[in-house]
Amino acid sequence: MQIGFVGLGKMGGNMALRLAVGSEDGKVKGAPPGHTVVGYAKDPNPALANIPGVELVDTLDKLIAKLKPPRAVWVMVPAGNPTEDVITQLSELLKQDAVIIDGGNSYYKDTLRRADHLSKRDIAFIDAGTSGGIWGRAEGYCMMVGGDRAAIDSVRPILDTLAPAPSPDGWAHVGPHGAGHFVKMIHNGIEYGLMEAYGEGFEILRHAPFDGGIDLHGIARVWNHGSVIRSWLLELAERMLREDSTLKTIQPYVEDSGEGRWTVQAAIDENVPAPVIAASLFARFESRDPENFSARFCAALRKQFGGHDVHRKDVTTKTDAGERQMQSDGSKAT
Amino acid sequence: MQIGFVGLGKMGGNMALRLAVGSEDGKVKGAPPGHTVVGYAKDPNPALANIPGVELVDTLDKLIAKLKPPRAVWVMVPAGNPTEDVITQLSELLKQDAVIIDGGNSYYKDTLRRADHLSKRDIAFIDAGTSGGIWGRAEGYCMMVGGDRAAIDSVRPILDTLAPAPSPDGWAHVGPHGAGHFVKMIHNGIEYGLMEAYGEGFEILRHAPFDGGIDLHGIARVWNHGSVIRSWLLELAERMLREDSTLKTIQPYVEDSGEGRWTVQAAIDENVPAPVIAASLFARFESRDPENFSARFCAALRKQFGGHDVHRKDVTTKTDAGERQMQSDGSKAT
Repeated sequence: MQIGFVGLGKMGGNMALRLAVGSEDGKVKGAPPGHTVVGYAKDPNPALANIPGVELVDTLDKLIAKLKPPRAVWVMVPAGNPTEDVITQLSELLKQDAVIIDGGNSYYKDTLRRADHLSKRDIAFIDAGTSGGIWGRAEGYCMMVGGDRAAIDSVRPILDTLAPAPSPDGWAHVGPHGAGHFVKMIHNGIEYGLMEAYGEGFEILRHAPFDGGIDLHGIARVWNHGSVIRSWLLELAERMLREDSTLKTIQPYVEDSGEGRWTVQAAIDENVPAPVIAASLFARFESRDPENFSARFCAALRKQFGGHDVHRKDVTTKTDAGERQMQSDGSKAT
Repeated sequence: MQIGFVGLGKMGGNMALRLAVGSEDGKVKGAPPGHTVVGYAKDPNPALANIPGVELVDTLDKLIAKLKPPRAVWVMVPAGNPTEDVITQLSELLKQDAVIIDGGNSYYKDTLRRADHLSKRDIAFIDAGTSGGIWGRAEGYCMMVGGDRAAIDSVRPILDTLAPAPSPDGWAHVGPHGAGHFVKMIHNGIEYGLMEAYGEGFEILRHAPFDGGIDLHGIARVWNHGSVIRSWLLELAERMLREDSTLKTIQPYVEDSGEGRWTVQAAIDENVPAPVIAASLFARFESRDPENFSARFCAALRKQFGGHDVHRKDVTTKTDAGERQMQSDGSKAT
């Protein structure tokens, strides 16, 4: 079928390629490609130029004009303002009998609000939480889809090709509006916990009390064959450790894009304990905090009650935000 | 080759079967079976009766007598006292040029002590941390092996058949004595974190604010196809949720067999933070504590400073250990 795509980056660009021509090696799990994609992006993936079945346009108006009714537009841009802007523009350009699919990691409460707004304009809305990362073109995308059955049925050929297998294995209609993004949010929250558990384990292994140390890449490799903790994430870790098991070129700075925060917020809304997911979220925050005021606080308080030594920091140089902060807080520069 | 097996339960019994005749369906990944197993166990797995290549004996003396030098004995009994008892007895029965393999989940510091003791008696010792659970007979066992190269080479045909693939994929020599059990300990510590992360995520999903709820089995199924968090544990979770997604027949009581504790202890020994693995261990303790004194403490303290209501418990009935404990601590029975 024909579909419009807004956002043609690492995710959207590869999804458009999978829809039009399939995976890079020509092997496709799931339904065959051959769809027609009309794509719009501020910075389209260069791999999309001159691909049969992919037509690039340079405005949203042109994208809408190229689509035959009933129009379907897949939005694959970052969550938050970019998604809000695109959906707002689409809601003004599209007439009734259109369907917008948000494939990004939107917060499910935003999705509920958008579905309500669009339904007043007779535009159907689908939230399709999409997992698979840069490997999705080859492996297929796991999609958790929320919305009305009729709207979802109208884009079923697209979902079947993007997924690694037909529904309910490769993609699933998980509930009403918002449920797709809710389930994807939990998926990512779990991912935080899994990643942190592996990270902690490998760090303890790295400091293991054995002469010659432990070959972390070799451990990841053997664990991926028959062990209880084998997983796709561990396969990626094996690959990463093979390149450099010291990770010496990687800063200890872990970004987040919101889903972990929202998962913890959902746990709070539901009065459900989630200590591991919360701890893995907080470990990411800690990784990004060179100031670590709480550690300074504890070190200083130990000195207060026990006269314990503190590790002094030279605050005469003003090279980072943490140090500037210390001085603006009134601490003495030596 | 010929090998003695002490302990023929869920793990040892299936390993003996894999060595002698292969997997249940006759398909074997890894080196072919056909080894000769002389087995001793207090309660041998009934599946081992009348299996070609498996000879059962009813004393350790008979087991030693049946083995031709150089004798190799695989010990697959619970960690702690059972392993200590078997290895002590074997060390008295065996002469030099023998090798003992401890395939259980022994604490690596016990392994270091045992290796030292056995080396004084000229008995080689190998620690082979073994993962795979009840699925290992079919899938192969992932083994993390510590000890001297020569001793490990002497049992290489056994390791190759037990494993899903040859070394270094299916099993690996990870370091000197103790390193095999150390790596297996970390494997299990990571496993605690992974399990708790999935558990928390599914609990938040179970309370999701959508009419009709979320089909937990369907979510596990779709996540196992192309998602970032697909894993063998998630495949087992899918299977378990298919049988009963409410888990209504399962008590919220999670046992542990030591490796999580030792992983946290290793993190402490190394001054390494492991908040997720520690939280997952403590979540298990909490699951087993009907008394929850810390929660009672906090509830009572809230009442002290804020006059907040507490949920009163009737302590006139004496039906559980928690209540008895309360009374022996001096609290009033009403």
